[in-house]
Amino acid sequence: MTHQVVSHMIAKDHFSRWLGVEVLDLSEGYCRLQASIREEMLNSFGMVHGGVPFSLADTAFAYACNNRNARSVALDANMSFIKPTHLGDTVTAEACEIHNGRSTGVYLVTLTNQQHETIALFKGTCFRTGKPVLGASASL
Amino acid sequence: MTHQVVSHMIAKDHFSRWLGVEVLDLSEGYCRLQASIREEMLNSFGMVHGGVPFSLADTAFAYACNNRNARSVALDANMSFIKPTHLGDTVTAEACEIHNGRSTGVYLVTLTNQQHETIALFKGTCFRTGKPVLGASASL
Amino acid sequence: MTHQVVSHMIAKDHFSRWLGVEVLDLSEGYCRLQASIREEMLNSFGMVHGGVPFSLADTAFAYACNNRNARSVALDANMSFIKPTHLGDTVTAEACEIHNGRSTGVYLVTLTNQQHETIALFKGTCFRTGKPVLGASASL
Amino acid sequence: MTHQVVSHMIAKDHFSRWLGVEVLDLSEGYCRLQASIREEMLNSFGMVHGGVPFSLADTAFAYACNNRNARSVALDANMSFIKPTHLGDTVTAEACEIHNGRSTGVYLVTLTNQQHETIALFKGTCFRTGKPVLGASASL
Repeated sequence: MTHQVVSHMIAKDHFSRWLGVEVLDLSEGYCRLQASIREEMLNSFGMVHGGVPFSLADTAFAYACNNRNARSVALDANMSFIKPTHLGDTVTAEACEIHNGRSTGVYLVTLTNQQHETIALFKGTCFRTGKPVLGASASL
Repeated sequence: MTHQVVSHMIAKDHFSRWLGVEVLDLSEGYCRLQASIREEMLNSFGMVHGGVPFSLADTAFAYACNNRNARSVALDANMSFIKPTHLGDTVTAEACEIHNGRSTGVYLVTLTNQQHETIALFKGTCFRTGKPVLGASASL
Repeated sequence: MTHQVVSHMIAKDHFSRWLGVEVLDLSEGYCRLQASIREEMLNSFGMVHGGVPFSLADTAFAYACNNRNARSVALDANMSFIKPTHLGDTVTAEACEIHNGRSTGVYLVTLTNQQHETIALFKGTCFRTGKPVLGASASL
Repeated sequence: MTHQVVSHMIAKDHFSRWLGVEVLDLSEGYCRLQASIREEMLNSFGMVHGGVPFSLADTAFAYACNNRNARSVALDANMSFIKPTHLGDTVTAEACEIHNGRSTGVYLVTLTNQQHETIALFKGTCFRTGKPVLGASASL
């Protein structure tokens, strides 16, 4: 089910496709993905724009917190920026479940570069809508 | 100086250009900008990917906190997601300075849609590097 | 109703009483309160322990987000520390409602000292439990 | 040195003493401590006031980020509240170093109860002042 839900999500996720997200590993409440830094992702200082690692973390968070087919939306997210990231770097985002509640969930996403250095740490809280990701229409 | 610094930043800011950022207003420690939501910015649920409003807020934060020609980098940022945003919406991000310290600064960014509804609230902390944005080369 | 709910809350709120909280102003979704810094609230460096302004902000947040008689619990809170606070200072915490949703709410709390300087900025997200603060038993 | 620095800090840390903090383990950039929940720490709903676990996390963060004798102050902290805590519970706060930078540091603090359930997750960023905690006077 986990893979089915995320395959369905990826197919429609325009922005994650633009980011070049490749899902590496997936299990209940967990997702690890990566993407490579292109010129379009840079900011004024020739480094990666902070929105890019945040977006990668947010995608990993979404694919982790929805993948039991429990449709969830982000309420709050925070990010600590640790190391700058540069053109050509490969960023891996690993989302781990800290809490899987009935109404809410908490996830920690660690972002690393190709030298296995932590470049950022993200914590996100989601709200469970009570609806499935897949199946409302499939069950008809 | 404020306008000169931000013009220099915009010229090199590939990702903010991809986002379609248009700066509406600028003063010391302040920036208001907007962008329109395109199909490439949507997520799995047909709404805007959370990384997009975060990125707009992060750009407003960067243009506000650097614009006294004090080169600054983001340390921490957090975002509360309040209302979903959809294809065709126009998002305005207004960054206000809460604290302009010697070593650090704190900024609050309010994001609204074209109906003047608050869609998200962002708080960011930056570190002052002690270097200018403009002028190293100009002084040669 | 707003005053009734908060009076009921204060009466049982042991820790806010220990903090010396005095509510100055109250309306729907809003609360302003203050407390004075005592020796017991100091940390290793002779300044106020970070937990004290956070706690004052958290009380203001609780009294603001519950005061329509909608029992709410904190999900996430973040604080930016701006200025140190010292023995004898008076801290005012003003909680304003940014979003009053059916399931969640977002509040911003500004903390100032007796010189009207901002010492910290707090943002909190709450979950609405669907239960009242007052009245279940009162209505019997 | 680590133990010397923290002993010095504890001796002067009035609020952590009020909280009943007991340090269980200590190493460079790391601290594990615990405290028991007393009636004075409860809020309006008969549960622990959110400021109390935050304060315990903040103490663990302080004892971890200062303990190489590098005087540091909190810039930003955020907390996700996961499970309510009650009178008589024992709360353990474990602070781990994610980043030990020259100017800043990032720490993650996990809070658990006596059943080893995670009750909250805290992330804190500190600024390195460049001064020692101990030694200015010791070197005379």
